[in-house]
Amino acid sequence: MFLILTGNGKGKTTSAIGQSIRVLGQDGKVFFAQFIKSGDFPAGEDKILSSLGENFHFEKGGLGFVSILGDKLPIEDHKKKAEETFKKASAAAVSGSYKLVVFDEINNALSLGLLSEPVILDFLKKVPEETDIIFTGRNAPASLIEIADLVTDCAEIKHPFQKGVSGEKGREF
Amino acid sequence: MFLILTGNGKGKTTSAIGQSIRVLGQDGKVFFAQFIKSGDFPAGEDKILSSLGENFHFEKGGLGFVSILGDKLPIEDHKKKAEETFKKASAAAVSGSYKLVVFDEINNALSLGLLSEPVILDFLKKVPEETDIIFTGRNAPASLIEIADLVTDCAEIKHPFQKGVSGEKGREF
Repeated sequence: MFLILTGNGKGKTTSAIGQSIRVLGQDGKVFFAQFIKSGDFPAGEDKILSSLGENFHFEKGGLGFVSILGDKLPIEDHKKKAEETFKKASAAAVSGSYKLVVFDEINNALSLGLLSEPVILDFLKKVPEETDIIFTGRNAPASLIEIADLVTDCAEIKHPFQKGVSGEKGREF
Repeated sequence: MFLILTGNGKGKTTSAIGQSIRVLGQDGKVFFAQFIKSGDFPAGEDKILSSLGENFHFEKGGLGFVSILGDKLPIEDHKKKAEETFKKASAAAVSGSYKLVVFDEINNALSLGLLSEPVILDFLKKVPEETDIIFTGRNAPASLIEIADLVTDCAEIKHPFQKGVSGEKGREF
């Protein structure tokens, strides 16, 4: 099954983590690839996830924010990293060894032009029936929404930043 | 901070679970109360969550679906159970001992009339600044949305049941 979590509201990545926990609770294997973001999970969940044993694989697959917040890397570097990450995650998905493969923030990677839409569409045709795929991130392309089995749009109604409260460790949601 | 995850789309409870994992990853304590639903988590996450040690408390707080799917319990029984669960979860929140208290499906309990809105509003005033509260479930009342710091509305764009695929173990999302 192919699921998309999109929209400008918070809760998309945490939802993919929660779904991973469900699958792990049933002894299913999870491959969790994170596009764009660099390094570890920002807020501590890597500590828990990496303690869950060999059924969970986390692929750190980004180089940080693209073209904002002081990013000075050439776009080609971001593209190369996104393509590498996609290669690993798509191989995991096609292998049939995983119950769930999460492509976290891949929608953003697509809308930033780091990945090619036809390549993604072609890949999705090859995923075995028993493997679930989750794509997260804003701006999911219409072509993916068209073929997805389930799409949830998370809309921000109110956000603390609107009220001038800055992000805090563990609370970035 | 008071967060609400509402809307008819999937991903609200899994998002609250993901947020719990973040907090646990930073050695924060989590109290996770589930309203309406009976028994264990339906899809395996209890196995993982209960393995995470004493920082995670799961409160099974429901008697099952209310007035549908063959439910024959008097509404008063559901009310009594919801009130008991609310009493425990609200005491945990007010105590200051928890970094996060999740009231899963409480919005549904409110819209079904199992809990009283003024009681909830009164409780929220007493929660210490350092404790985060998450309310999940459809139909969050306007009075709560008004005072929440962050509200995400998860809208279903496409759902597999629309396509005639029935729920499956570990995939109910």
